[in-house]
Amino acid sequence: MANAASPRTTDRKPGDGYVQSFARGLEVIRSFSHDAPHQTLTEVAARSGLSRAGARRILLTLQALGYVRLEGKLFSLSPRILDLGFAYLSSMPIWNLAEPVMETLVEQVRESCSAAVLDGTDIVYVLRVPTHKIMSISLGVGSRLPAYCTSMGRMLLSSLPTDELATVLAASNLAARTRHTVTDVKELTARIAQVRRQGWSLVNQELEEGVVSMAAPIVNRAGQMVAALNISGQANRTSARTMQETMLPHLLAATQSVSRMLGGQPV
Amino acid sequence: MANAASPRTTDRKPGDGYVQSFARGLEVIRSFSHDAPHQTLTEVAARSGLSRAGARRILLTLQALGYVRLEGKLFSLSPRILDLGFAYLSSMPIWNLAEPVMETLVEQVRESCSAAVLDGTDIVYVLRVPTHKIMSISLGVGSRLPAYCTSMGRMLLSSLPTDELATVLAASNLAARTRHTVTDVKELTARIAQVRRQGWSLVNQELEEGVVSMAAPIVNRAGQMVAALNISGQANRTSARTMQETMLPHLLAATQSVSRMLGGQPV
Repeated sequence: MANAASPRTTDRKPGDGYVQSFARGLEVIRSFSHDAPHQTLTEVAARSGLSRAGARRILLTLQALGYVRLEGKLFSLSPRILDLGFAYLSSMPIWNLAEPVMETLVEQVRESCSAAVLDGTDIVYVLRVPTHKIMSISLGVGSRLPAYCTSMGRMLLSSLPTDELATVLAASNLAARTRHTVTDVKELTARIAQVRRQGWSLVNQELEEGVVSMAAPIVNRAGQMVAALNISGQANRTSARTMQETMLPHLLAATQSVSRMLGGQPV
Repeated sequence: MANAASPRTTDRKPGDGYVQSFARGLEVIRSFSHDAPHQTLTEVAARSGLSRAGARRILLTLQALGYVRLEGKLFSLSPRILDLGFAYLSSMPIWNLAEPVMETLVEQVRESCSAAVLDGTDIVYVLRVPTHKIMSISLGVGSRLPAYCTSMGRMLLSSLPTDELATVLAASNLAARTRHTVTDVKELTARIAQVRRQGWSLVNQELEEGVVSMAAPIVNRAGQMVAALNISGQANRTSARTMQETMLPHLLAATQSVSRMLGGQPV
């Protein structure tokens, strides 16, 4: 999922200002994953599309900067690499404001709550407050999910101008992840229009069987939707109807509260 | 704090394999922060020590790859930058194992729980399970704190060979953050030796007035201490003595449980 393409990336051709060596260096970082936490030089070169000499220079640079560790012949990322993402998270003061509100919300509804932003065809999780239930869904900060079949995704897509929405949906891989997933562009566009009108979204088992999720928007002073907040639960514990009746008011109160802190007019 | 130096970085001189342009590109990413979330080209150049032309090429490359956004004349990081840190987090299967154990622990002790790893003189937070109390301490994934005055830091420092520990302490900025902070190297070394013997650490208001924290180690199959887990609370709510008596057994049970999942022999 971390490698899902976005229209933002794929549409743009590198121009003359493009620094190929820098771009390749970032690919070396991304070549490490759950399936490949420790890699030899040869593996890094193969996964990042570099020559062995090129991969070696990048790895030595990353090691000199403390971003990569070498044990024997195996390279792995060091925790210092989190600094790069941390620059993003700490540059968004909204998350400090939103977290206490989200914690109160979790206390009220006893379901986990997350915040996400849109990145091309994906949503990216930026905050998560888990509930203390065995079945809570594990999606850490930085996780990606497709926007079209998630409640936060549809909420965020509803803020796009019509032509931009069409572009994103055209670039999306509209897979039927469950028997409930809406994959027809026309039907999706209609549902997203409804989300725009009502100011919140509910997605019932379209991402995964058994998972129901509701989302509402965080709006800043300039009227831009900067993030969505969701509550996610299990259909066998709480029906979609019950979630909407009992939890939606709390969710909307939470997003309106965070929006007001940002100087935004709640929807 | 995100820019705190580590001996790993500062001791090493760039060799002939070093790719200066790549290193500078990473500095451009790190130039964005809480204080500078949106920057002009001139500001990025000044903060990252690059020429305007050099900074421009890196920013355009980052923009083409979707890591940076440009609105008007202001550049900002995009959430895609989290992919770089996500590569690290997802390459460590331990966090998926540890999180449910940490959630149970938080339920038992009603205090927040975090996991951190050592990076030079700092600890870096890799997981956090907050408790739903107003006064919970906000330290997100990727946050850094100095190792010498934190419970997880002393726990992790206790795993270092004597000479390496001395090097790290010599490179640390041993500031008296409160009137309780131990800043004497000899005394710190003695306390860390005690932590090594007893298999857990307690730091009482040395980081911040009112904050008490206890930590215990997660050990893998190879006997390496890969992370520390902590419980952090407020001294005015729970004394250090009460924390040790009532919460330490739960904390040790949690770290032993995670260590066993990794095939490690609990301390």
